[in-house]
Amino acid sequence: MSFDLNNDPHIRIDILTGERVLVSPHRSKRPWQGQVEKSTTRERETYDEDCYLCPGNRRAEGAINPSYSGSFVFVNDFSALLDRDNSFYLNEKDLFITEAERGICKVISFSPRHDLTLAEMDLDAITQVVKTWQNEFDNLRKNIWVQYIQVFENKGAIMGCSNPHPHGQVWAQQGIPSAIVLEGQRQMDYFKKYGRTLLRDYLDAELKKKERVLIETKSFVCLVPYWAKWPFETMIISKRELQTISEFSSEELSDLALVIQELAIRYDNLFETSFPYSAGMHQAPVNTGDQSGWHWHMHFYPPLLRSATVKKFMVGYEMLADAQRDITPEKAAEMLQQLSVIHYKKQSN
Amino acid sequence: MSFDLNNDPHIRIDILTGERVLVSPHRSKRPWQGQVEKSTTRERETYDEDCYLCPGNRRAEGAINPSYSGSFVFVNDFSALLDRDNSFYLNEKDLFITEAERGICKVISFSPRHDLTLAEMDLDAITQVVKTWQNEFDNLRKNIWVQYIQVFENKGAIMGCSNPHPHGQVWAQQGIPSAIVLEGQRQMDYFKKYGRTLLRDYLDAELKKKERVLIETKSFVCLVPYWAKWPFETMIISKRELQTISEFSSEELSDLALVIQELAIRYDNLFETSFPYSAGMHQAPVNTGDQSGWHWHMHFYPPLLRSATVKKFMVGYEMLADAQRDITPEKAAEMLQQLSVIHYKKQSN
Ligand SMILES: O=P(O)(O)O[C@H]1O[C@H](CO)[C@@H](O)[C@H](O)[C@H]1O
Ligand SMILES: O=P(O)(O)O[C@H]1O[C@H](CO)[C@@H](O)[C@H](O)[C@H]1O
Repeated sequence: MSFDLNNDPHIRIDILTGERVLVSPHRSKRPWQGQVEKSTTRERETYDEDCYLCPGNRRAEGAINPSYSGSFVFVNDFSALLDRDNSFYLNEKDLFITEAERGICKVISFSPRHDLTLAEMDLDAITQVVKTWQNEFDNLRKNIWVQYIQVFENKGAIMGCSNPHPHGQVWAQQGIPSAIVLEGQRQMDYFKKYGRTLLRDYLDAELKKKERVLIETKSFVCLVPYWAKWPFETMIISKRELQTISEFSSEELSDLALVIQELAIRYDNLFETSFPYSAGMHQAPVNTGDQSGWHWHMHFYPPLLRSATVKKFMVGYEMLADAQRDITPEKAAEMLQQLSVIHYKKQSN
Repeated sequence: MSFDLNNDPHIRIDILTGERVLVSPHRSKRPWQGQVEKSTTRERETYDEDCYLCPGNRRAEGAINPSYSGSFVFVNDFSALLDRDNSFYLNEKDLFITEAERGICKVISFSPRHDLTLAEMDLDAITQVVKTWQNEFDNLRKNIWVQYIQVFENKGAIMGCSNPHPHGQVWAQQGIPSAIVLEGQRQMDYFKKYGRTLLRDYLDAELKKKERVLIETKSFVCLVPYWAKWPFETMIISKRELQTISEFSSEELSDLALVIQELAIRYDNLFETSFPYSAGMHQAPVNTGDQSGWHWHMHFYPPLLRSATVKKFMVGYEMLADAQRDITPEKAAEMLQQLSVIHYKKQSN
């Protein structure tokens, strides 16, 4: 019997986590009668006097933002982690396991302009954001108790972002998050078996196949992973086997800015909306043991499914069993490949 | 230095998965300026002529529902899995791993009444739903290719439910989902080490501590797990070391209905709204090898955080690193414990 990836339900394995993803291509024609999101096409002002990120404004805890240009970094006024030294650990019969967690949560405003996102910022401004990420990473890892640093962005109200002023976050912490332990273990296993990083070999194979590749520059590739869970999920992978952003050359920093810009523009163009997502880098832990096999990459998890207002719900089956998707990763890649690299707001008709 | 679980950020380990959960109790006073959901207090009709679940109505693929009483089961007109025998498997260099997946997706309408949820149905009607779950499970496992059966419910538009008529789903499949493999492995490891199931010991310890226990009946306990990820997450655990609903006595079936009813009522009473959640049973795989250590339980994952319209966003940090919560599980349990077991709509003022 023949098998058709474009029509038959099947499982794909996420090679970074080992997790199964159920792909149900035949189901992409399902009508949708459920919840519809608000679309956000409203134009914003360049400055908002009530925004705690705009230059010169007062923040929740009273501090006044400088009148900055470029990006601006400060410790989150409502940090989930606190920088307090405490070594509490308690394991009660393998049933109640508790450990103190120390950390620093920072906010990075991407630009003094309240109204721009990465999709509309110019390349110099995005390059400055990327340099700020490197700078923050380099400084935070100097705390010898820090073992992991998560750089990420929640974009759009639908992704829990409470302020539309473009910004991201950096959380540095004492422990290593579960997702990082898992990806690290699998990357190390592969490296020990094959002597090359998992993502190096994966990248080479994808560059030969081409069908899921969206953007290729000198130093990075952006693609829809074969095992993508979210409808328009993508990944940026460095061509060199780098472990963290600390190792990036200045050419690589600008090159990453270029890839992020192009991806953000294509995303916005897909449904002609400010395209929501959560995105973040996965990097090797620092100040700790052997990390061989770790290969720097950045995940983009966008929730939208078929329009600016209909999202994919990762709910019952997905929370309890396996991730599930309808449209194939190849179809998603094809749709993203066909889009213009000029932002829809800037296209002359 | 002393450590205070009610104030200091800490990690708790989910004993079923081994995953870390970051608890940030000091942060529960954070103001919320982000997305606010629609609240659904609108009363519904007992029958809706456009509903594909109401008795006598026509479904998407043309079939006509019988004029049923009790619950009603049919194969999903837009099944994510299809019942087609296919043994396709391909592993391309450990990078592209693909496998055919066979399955059956059923929908269970809980009641002919369009307007009721489990929180408002009477005990007999809920008992009938629980019996239907057992019946479906018993029948589906007779297909020798079926290895796992997921019983679940998505309740509320916010949880991707596209029809407010009360209903759940049952997906039977050939493979074993990642979440089940993980929980099964950890339960087996514990069982081999201690000779008792992990959840048996956990239950005993929680029944002694009492602070996270919401409901205890002869056969089941409902509690807020020590490692709960969602603000008001709960779990129902059987007192006997049962592996699947097949083994439930008829007394246990009615008893489960009672626990579900009381939990659903307390949930609705919390914010005086039809409380959304995704819920589902985790049960041992069937028609396959040794499952020792598996202990039947049911997870409830509700998204709301502090009102009928403000939910917890599991986004950037949570998708990339670890789950994170603000309010402690103990505080959530306390709030749920204090609620009436009479549904707010039925309370006389
Ligand atoms: O099966 P339904 O109700 O059409 O769809 C709902 O539940 C499914 C299983 O959790 C999800 O995959 C869908 O995203 C969700 O909208
Ligand atoms: O840190 P913020 O922007 O206040 O909050 C947002 O991102 C956090 C990290 O992903 C999440 O824990 C919150 O649920 C979300 O609303």
